[in-house]
Amino acid sequence: MSQEKFEELRQRLAEIVDLSKTMALLAWDQQVMMPRGGAPIRAEQMATVGRIAHVKFTSAEMGSLIDSLRGWAEEHEYDSFEASLVRVAARDWEKASKVPADLRAEISRSAALAQPVWVDARKNNDFESFLPVLRRNLDLRKRYIDCFDVDDEPYDIVLDDFERGMKTKEVRRLFDYLKEHQAPLVKEAVARSNGSASHEFTIPEQKVFEREVLAEFGFQEHDWRLDPTVHPFASGTGITDIRITTRYFTDKLEGLFGTMHEFGHGLYEHQIDPGLERSPLARGVSLGMHESQSRLWENLVGRSRPFWRRFFPRLKELQPKALSGYDAERWYREVNAVRPSLIRVEADEGTYNLHVIVRFELEQAMIGDEFPLEQLPEEWNRRIWEYLGIEVPTDTEGVLQDVHWSSGSIGYFPTYALGNLISAQIWERATADLPGLEDGFEHGEFAPLADWLREHLHRHGRKLTPAETLERVAGTDRIDPAPYVRYLRRKLSGIYGIPATAGP
Amino acid sequence: MSQEKFEELRQRLAEIVDLSKTMALLAWDQQVMMPRGGAPIRAEQMATVGRIAHVKFTSAEMGSLIDSLRGWAEEHEYDSFEASLVRVAARDWEKASKVPADLRAEISRSAALAQPVWVDARKNNDFESFLPVLRRNLDLRKRYIDCFDVDDEPYDIVLDDFERGMKTKEVRRLFDYLKEHQAPLVKEAVARSNGSASHEFTIPEQKVFEREVLAEFGFQEHDWRLDPTVHPFASGTGITDIRITTRYFTDKLEGLFGTMHEFGHGLYEHQIDPGLERSPLARGVSLGMHESQSRLWENLVGRSRPFWRRFFPRLKELQPKALSGYDAERWYREVNAVRPSLIRVEADEGTYNLHVIVRFELEQAMIGDEFPLEQLPEEWNRRIWEYLGIEVPTDTEGVLQDVHWSSGSIGYFPTYALGNLISAQIWERATADLPGLEDGFEHGEFAPLADWLREHLHRHGRKLTPAETLERVAGTDRIDPAPYVRYLRRKLSGIYGIPATAGP
Repeated sequence: MSQEKFEELRQRLAEIVDLSKTMALLAWDQQVMMPRGGAPIRAEQMATVGRIAHVKFTSAEMGSLIDSLRGWAEEHEYDSFEASLVRVAARDWEKASKVPADLRAEISRSAALAQPVWVDARKNNDFESFLPVLRRNLDLRKRYIDCFDVDDEPYDIVLDDFERGMKTKEVRRLFDYLKEHQAPLVKEAVARSNGSASHEFTIPEQKVFEREVLAEFGFQEHDWRLDPTVHPFASGTGITDIRITTRYFTDKLEGLFGTMHEFGHGLYEHQIDPGLERSPLARGVSLGMHESQSRLWENLVGRSRPFWRRFFPRLKELQPKALSGYDAERWYREVNAVRPSLIRVEADEGTYNLHVIVRFELEQAMIGDEFPLEQLPEEWNRRIWEYLGIEVPTDTEGVLQDVHWSSGSIGYFPTYALGNLISAQIWERATADLPGLEDGFEHGEFAPLADWLREHLHRHGRKLTPAETLERVAGTDRIDPAPYVRYLRRKLSGIYGIPATAGP
Repeated sequence: MSQEKFEELRQRLAEIVDLSKTMALLAWDQQVMMPRGGAPIRAEQMATVGRIAHVKFTSAEMGSLIDSLRGWAEEHEYDSFEASLVRVAARDWEKASKVPADLRAEISRSAALAQPVWVDARKNNDFESFLPVLRRNLDLRKRYIDCFDVDDEPYDIVLDDFERGMKTKEVRRLFDYLKEHQAPLVKEAVARSNGSASHEFTIPEQKVFEREVLAEFGFQEHDWRLDPTVHPFASGTGITDIRITTRYFTDKLEGLFGTMHEFGHGLYEHQIDPGLERSPLARGVSLGMHESQSRLWENLVGRSRPFWRRFFPRLKELQPKALSGYDAERWYREVNAVRPSLIRVEADEGTYNLHVIVRFELEQAMIGDEFPLEQLPEEWNRRIWEYLGIEVPTDTEGVLQDVHWSSGSIGYFPTYALGNLISAQIWERATADLPGLEDGFEHGEFAPLADWLREHLHRHGRKLTPAETLERVAGTDRIDPAPYVRYLRRKLSGIYGIPATAGP
């Protein structure tokens, strides 16, 4: 009887997952393929599919079906498919059923309509044209917060959407640690840093190179796509349909690092236990954990010395003009240079978290109406000056640079910095478990890392909580900023000669 | 009260249209973009979205809502939005509500699963590997027919899905006329024909050329896409998101003609009255009418003398090697040469309808179990020999060439020939209405034709029946094969010197 009910739950959830993956395709297509004229009707389509998924999931019928299975599920092993599915569905249902379907649809429609407005505003450095849609997205997000009981801070509600169980207070604590320990490190590095070198990279050869790197990482055409877009992201419609996107510059190689970053996201989704497919367990457990994977491949792998020992000769062959005068070691130093800059996604490891802290503070201020929204560019620019010591010349390079607010995603940014911290926690475990891991990169051996990540992290999908998942992969259920700062100090000491350990 | 009910109907139908356009995107993506690994999960997604749309549309609630509006709708002008929406929804509901949701979902899942099997079978010339999925599609199609009362012939049921109101008997009558009048014309032309010339067209320059042609036709990046695929088709998610696809060959220019063909389909959807968007009236009225538009742009425009007077010099500039020794007139004759060949989509205007007749006869035989399905290749090859006088060397060039049966579409093929016939009926009216129309092509003037088609045909969408629509655009509600045969005879008489009018 319960088995039958469970089967019914599984089927119903599978249908909802089909709809949410369909939403993912509608969104991917919108950003990568859709002719611009499609924007208004796409907004309706996304609102409709989103609303149907929401109504189906939050129905009272679904609620009682889940309820009726709680006892039965608890008789199964904690991390069995059965127990996990019922537990995760129950938790999701509790949160989602508090949000009216119309509000959910409105959020989705508003996001779809705002997206092309943001693209234009960013292109034309025109914050004013973006302001009305941003205001609309923000108002909807406040109405969303109003659906819940706020225990502590309103921002907790949106943060929890991306990082289940995380509290604003805890993030603040972590970020304070970074301000105390990472910021001085950056200052030391900047003081010893040279000016930036100028390069000119040809785009077709960048594409050849990134494909070669991806192939060694494990990207296979059978299950993956890579496309150009305005603001890179990873998406897909299932474990065997992974889509990553990137963009190209001629004066820098950020496209490559972006591609490796999105590969990390893609690999997480690709290595989830196939038995979880078409269930709500078949995705990464949280955005912070997801970001740990993208940052791991982008930085801990892609900016490592062994990686460049392997790939530098080929890159130089493809880009002889840009790299004349470089050898692998000099290039390694170049891609790890600490230089405060304007664009978050292109920021170096030293300054990246500071960009995130700016957004974290601004989002809390927006939610709390701490200043009129018209002032957002000023508020942005002021903080960038304060934390990074640089002036923001245009809103395109400032407040308009990120896609998130156009899609109504508030509470998302902190997960980027959490991901950095987690990536270093995981790295300490992986390198302890796999002696010689990094040296293997020099010989193109990336499979041991991918396999280790599958085994300790990826395969679990969303079966466990973020904290439980962290426990499995890093041996602790708390995010700890120390390993990241240690890692950074070690790397920068090798490049800039600053002390390898912090002073007393 | 009724106005409110109507508003409810409009809203409900809009939601269903959103789902069906979402289906269109899932299908477009599947054939143009999806990594192969995505096939199994895509099948589930399409089945789910299709099932939800079907369940929503065929609900008893929807039925009574439509019923309650019949009287009110009849008080409106026949071709008003209100009257048309209720009338068309009522007719659609009557047919759709006879089909159980599970069968509908099964048909859609089976089609999605069969599609990649067909791609492989076609590539590997392996009919056997395709047979099980074809059998499954056919069985499901028979179960579908069983949902209806058959008045006359079972094939009527599937034919009516693509060409509402058309009867198998009527198609047979039209095709008999073609056998009597078109087939002899082909024989005369073939007897006077030279062997085929061999060319070598570079693909990048084909792409440049087709983009230039499309730009003059009215293709704009803002609302259109063009992509390569295995089996070209037109699709899209709305009036302002039109997607056409094509493929390229190096030994012939069929890619260009295919592109112009799909442009004709796209233009029909693009020029529908924007006020009909998100309603079931916002698409072409029938596949025959749709095909009349694709064939019109492909053949009546794209194979006309004035078209090539305009574009030949540019084509020669781009493909000097392939076209050495050609001038516009000789090239015009080349692209209109009658040469029986194996592939329907590449067939010339003289032989095309014969390919369709083969499929029409085979489909009726399959539905009627007239032979074991294993024999399909033999049956195919025998008829190609009989009607076209050529041997089929491989199933890839024979029974496996078309996508339709892999997607379960049976009853579709006849509409291709009906489209040819309608295109000539429309052409006689358009050229009578717009003196100098064809001469204008020589000066790049294609807008008058596009505008005329918008006004007389496209804008109506699906408001009227196919017969009523035909009446508006061609002045008669019957498909008449005579104009097509007249057109063909006139063209071939100019090329092969056969008599310009039929003998006594």
